[in-house]
Amino acid sequence: MSETLILHEDPRSGNCYKIKLTAAILGMAIESRQYDILKGETRTAEFTQTINAHGRIPVLQIGNRFLPESNAACWYLAEDTMLVPEARFERAQMLRWMFFEQYSHEPNIATLRFWCRFVGVKNLSDQQRDQMMAKRIAGQDALSTMNAHLKSHDWFAGDGPSLADIALYAYTAVADEGGFDLQSYPEIRRWLERVPSIDGFIAME
Amino acid sequence: MSETLILHEDPRSGNCYKIKLTAAILGMAIESRQYDILKGETRTAEFTQTINAHGRIPVLQIGNRFLPESNAACWYLAEDTMLVPEARFERAQMLRWMFFEQYSHEPNIATLRFWCRFVGVKNLSDQQRDQMMAKRIAGQDALSTMNAHLKSHDWFAGDGPSLADIALYAYTAVADEGGFDLQSYPEIRRWLERVPSIDGFIAME
Repeated sequence: MSETLILHEDPRSGNCYKIKLTAAILGMAIESRQYDILKGETRTAEFTQTINAHGRIPVLQIGNRFLPESNAACWYLAEDTMLVPEARFERAQMLRWMFFEQYSHEPNIATLRFWCRFVGVKNLSDQQRDQMMAKRIAGQDALSTMNAHLKSHDWFAGDGPSLADIALYAYTAVADEGGFDLQSYPEIRRWLERVPSIDGFIAME
Repeated sequence: MSETLILHEDPRSGNCYKIKLTAAILGMAIESRQYDILKGETRTAEFTQTINAHGRIPVLQIGNRFLPESNAACWYLAEDTMLVPEARFERAQMLRWMFFEQYSHEPNIATLRFWCRFVGVKNLSDQQRDQMMAKRIAGQDALSTMNAHLKSHDWFAGDGPSLADIALYAYTAVADEGGFDLQSYPEIRRWLERVPSIDGFIAME
C-alpha cells in the first residue's frame, strides 16, 4: 500500500484498537491522530467538515481519502491477506460475525464498558441508567451465541484467525470493565487466550 | 451458483427484503420459508438448533449451510457482480455504509417502525417507550448523514448502485411508518426515486 495511512482515533476505543491490531498483524505502518471523545473533539466543525460528517472515530485516512467505520477500515487493510478466508462462504461468514459484532455485541458490551469505566454510573442520565439492564441481557445473549459457536470452532470463520476474531476480540477482552463475568463462557475464555498467539498481536493500550 | 438458495424470513422485515432485492437484481432464484417473528417462531428449539443459534431472521440457507445477518447474505450473493465496486477503496466505502446501516440506522429507524406499525405504541413496555425519543434523534442524525453524502453523490459507493444502496434503501423507504418525515431530507427523497430505476428492482411486499 503506497499511500500514507493515518488513524484518527481515541486510544480508549476498542473500535480503534481493531484497526491497529489488524495493521500490526499485517505488518503495516499506520500513523495516529488522537482525539478525546469525552471532550467532544470529534464533533467540531473542523472534524465533521473534513474527516467524518457523522462526527465519530475511528476514521482511517488513506492518502487524502477518509474511511469511517472500524470494520470497513479493517476490511480495507486486510482484503486479499491471510486475515480474510479464501472460500466464498467462509468470507461471508466472517462478515456475518463482523455485522453481529456491530449490531448485537458492541452496542451492549462496549457501551456498558464506556458508561461504567469512562463516564461513571453516577454521571449517567436516567434514561441511560434505565437501559443498563436491557444492555446487560442483550450482551449476555451475544456472549452466549459466541460461546455456542466456539464449542465446535477454534475461530469464527474458516480454519484460522480472521477479521471476525479481531472485531470480536476488541471488546470481549475488556468485557469485565462493563461488568460482564466471563466465567460462564468457558469457550470464550479459551478463545481469548488463543487470539494473542497470532503473529504480530498487540494488546490494547 | 449451483446450490439451492433458501431465505428464512419474515416478509415484514426490511432486513429480509434486502436479500430478496439483491437476488432479484442479480436474477437469482431464491426460495422462501416464512416465520412470524411476533409469534416467536424464530425462538423455537428447532430454529435455534438448526438455522440460527441467535434466534433471528433473515438467514440465507445455501445448500445445507446457514448464513445469518442480512448484509453478509447480500455480500455472499453479490460478490464479484456489478453490485460490488471493483476499486478497493470504493468496495470498503460500500461496507462502511453497510456497517453504518446496521449500527446507526436500523436500530433507530427500523425499530421505531416495528414498534409503531407492528407492535403498537400502546403495547410497548415503559422501557421501550422511554427509548423512543433517543431513537428518534439518532435516526434523524443517520438520515442527516445520508443526506449530506447524497449532496455530492448519486449513490453511496462508487459510480453506480451497490449493496450499500440496497442495505440503506430497505428501511429508509418505509421510514415514514416509524414516524420519520423525509421532507427535511431532499437528497434522500431524490435517491429514493433513483433506486427503483435499477434493472430487476422489486418493491417490499
